[in-house]
Amino acid sequence: MAEKGGGLVRTVLQQCLHARLQVQEADEQLEAQHVQINRGMVIYICFFKGATDDILPKMVSTLLNLRLCELPSGKRVSLLELPGSLLIVPQATLGGKAKGKGMQYHNNINKEDGLKLYSSFISLCEKELMAAAGETGRESEVTVRHGTYGQRQVLQLDTDGPYTHLMDF
Amino acid sequence: MAEKGGGLVRTVLQQCLHARLQVQEADEQLEAQHVQINRGMVIYICFFKGATDDILPKMVSTLLNLRLCELPSGKRVSLLELPGSLLIVPQATLGGKAKGKGMQYHNNINKEDGLKLYSSFISLCEKELMAAAGETGRESEVTVRHGTYGQRQVLQLDTDGPYTHLMDF
Repeated sequence: MAEKGGGLVRTVLQQCLHARLQVQEADEQLEAQHVQINRGMVIYICFFKGATDDILPKMVSTLLNLRLCELPSGKRVSLLELPGSLLIVPQATLGGKAKGKGMQYHNNINKEDGLKLYSSFISLCEKELMAAAGETGRESEVTVRHGTYGQRQVLQLDTDGPYTHLMDF
Repeated sequence: MAEKGGGLVRTVLQQCLHARLQVQEADEQLEAQHVQINRGMVIYICFFKGATDDILPKMVSTLLNLRLCELPSGKRVSLLELPGSLLIVPQATLGGKAKGKGMQYHNNINKEDGLKLYSSFISLCEKELMAAAGETGRESEVTVRHGTYGQRQVLQLDTDGPYTHLMDF
């Protein structure tokens, strides 16, 4: 078996050359709004019942320091080492469990607590990524962007190999 | 915790409006070659040690019949009900387990057995998807495409929400 954690947070990680995510649907007044990143990583994240803020610092440190990015040479580096940008996509479907032909999401955290954790997770990622980029004078090359919690995540992804990993915490 | 299986095969599933995958790198003689699908599902797949052909029929039936596709209305249908196309992407990284800052893939199946299972999986998906499409006279709308086992999976994905699910078998 591959990586298994305590079952409080599930993440799926994909590398990208470019990723673009809708953060606001079009309505009668406004066009749809998007965020985007260039080279970096997309984190799809789902919080389960029982998850609290306590888990976040170690989790963020792990995700940003793990050698999850493959260079064209084959060498593997972390997002901080790359350095690359980060797109965070809330993805409640990751908590799905099959029952018959349907999927159930009974172990997912409630929306209010999930939103709090999601916001804290983003802040910690920003803090750690920008601090690391600052040390090397490369702040202008990296950014953290994120989707709107609870919305449909209209996503476009362009990869040189998604190099998909699962990390449970 | 969400879906956990016997730990023989890991799949990550994403919905797409369009997906394009490189199946042959460019070389001195030839341009890079790609396959693509329109509306449907991308299956990222990783086989673990101990996986055999026995697991495949039930697995294919489950993946194609689970209601993993969300329509714009919010209604959920299976790939067979949609009907949609399928892009199968070999993704050995899904078997990764963190050790320190590195990822290890010790539980992944060997390449030879993995390739056999991958080929059988594709054949079964083609058979089941085309049979279902044939029953409704919609063969021309659906297709099964797949990546080259063991290569870098250069992928472009356009979604109306990836609706990412994890299914272990």
